[in-house]
Amino acid sequence: MIKALFFDVFGTLVDWRASVARESAATLAPRGHDLDWLAFATAWRGQYQPAMEKVRSSARDYVKLDVLHRENLVAILPAFGVRDLPEATIDELARRAWRKLDAWPDVVEGLRRLREKVLIAPVSNGNISLMADLARHNGIGWDAILGAEIAHDYKPNARVYDAACAAFDLPPGECAMVAAHTGDLLAAATRGLKTIHIARPDENGPGRGEARPAAPVDIAARDLLELSGMLPL
Amino acid sequence: MIKALFFDVFGTLVDWRASVARESAATLAPRGHDLDWLAFATAWRGQYQPAMEKVRSSARDYVKLDVLHRENLVAILPAFGVRDLPEATIDELARRAWRKLDAWPDVVEGLRRLREKVLIAPVSNGNISLMADLARHNGIGWDAILGAEIAHDYKPNARVYDAACAAFDLPPGECAMVAAHTGDLLAAATRGLKTIHIARPDENGPGRGEARPAAPVDIAARDLLELSGMLPL
Repeated sequence: MIKALFFDVFGTLVDWRASVARESAATLAPRGHDLDWLAFATAWRGQYQPAMEKVRSSARDYVKLDVLHRENLVAILPAFGVRDLPEATIDELARRAWRKLDAWPDVVEGLRRLREKVLIAPVSNGNISLMADLARHNGIGWDAILGAEIAHDYKPNARVYDAACAAFDLPPGECAMVAAHTGDLLAAATRGLKTIHIARPDENGPGRGEARPAAPVDIAARDLLELSGMLPL
Repeated sequence: MIKALFFDVFGTLVDWRASVARESAATLAPRGHDLDWLAFATAWRGQYQPAMEKVRSSARDYVKLDVLHRENLVAILPAFGVRDLPEATIDELARRAWRKLDAWPDVVEGLRRLREKVLIAPVSNGNISLMADLARHNGIGWDAILGAEIAHDYKPNARVYDAACAAFDLPPGECAMVAAHTGDLLAAATRGLKTIHIARPDENGPGRGEARPAAPVDIAARDLLELSGMLPL
């Protein structure tokens, strides 16, 4: 019996690509920059895994994702011809862009229904303050904010899944990881969690996302509304 | 400008004494025990500070408050003549009694109003799962659950206040600790947080609680509704 659902956030619950593009344009266009904003968002996100890998491999101590987002922004600006941006503007853009991500249409109501049945928490690589602001932006109510910051490590390292189950005092078999990314689910499965795949076929652009899991999972659902109809599990 | 309010929970937001007495009676009375339930609740709570002190002094590694609550229950049962209680009943009572605490009458509406103005989080010695269940029991919505478990230490040790400010990326001067206990507030003040005292004159029984702060604080309010009328600060 599943008693808690743990949610991946970027891509699974929120459309980071369109939202980061919009927020980047809002900051940079008034300064005279005319970029391919979706490409800019994709490039920024492209630095995400290699940046976290340094922490996962212990080459670097844990730092919040906010810190990595800022470093990653600084890394891609030259390739887009953006130079001499004031430090305060970089600070503001790095922080703000990832806090104004809009949820996919099924998410707010889906989470509300799921929360009537089980505990729900984000188990994201995003830090606590980022998750709190995203929840406010979208009107999401969580039971707690778990994830990378309480584990001081990044998914898919085992510690993140283990810490989430431990925070809720639940054996992993009573917890399920919910994600649109098969890799996240496979890592959760190695720790004993159940796995639930959500289809986000357009996460990285039209037709460029996981419409279905790339490996066997316990449940595959179209969206959170469909999932809420499947519980209790 | 205060951007986040951190709340003490036991005594400040919830009436642990009447609630623990009620829950203890609900479990033990059907087994034939007829105790002074309020005295039982008070005795159980009486073990709270010495149990945490072992962690605060590093005589013991951090364990969740749930663990201490169970040990403290076992410690007081003989004095009340309760013997041979099954382990499963001890588990259930220890866990349940502190999850069914009722909020004082101003709390749910007061927190709702305060959350419209600032970030709000419990900074309690209670663990994450305990806080999540208490929030559900009372219908409270938090921005995040902070406190002892993310710091791996117990108030009034500095680390707990520091960890809460760090989780929200705020300097301590933009955070306020809200408590009905002057000692908690004085400890927060040494870390640079603002201090807000809430009157709970009957916390430990009629007239046996802090009707006013025992030392200077930044703000003293009758309850959370009065406090919400004072913000922004």
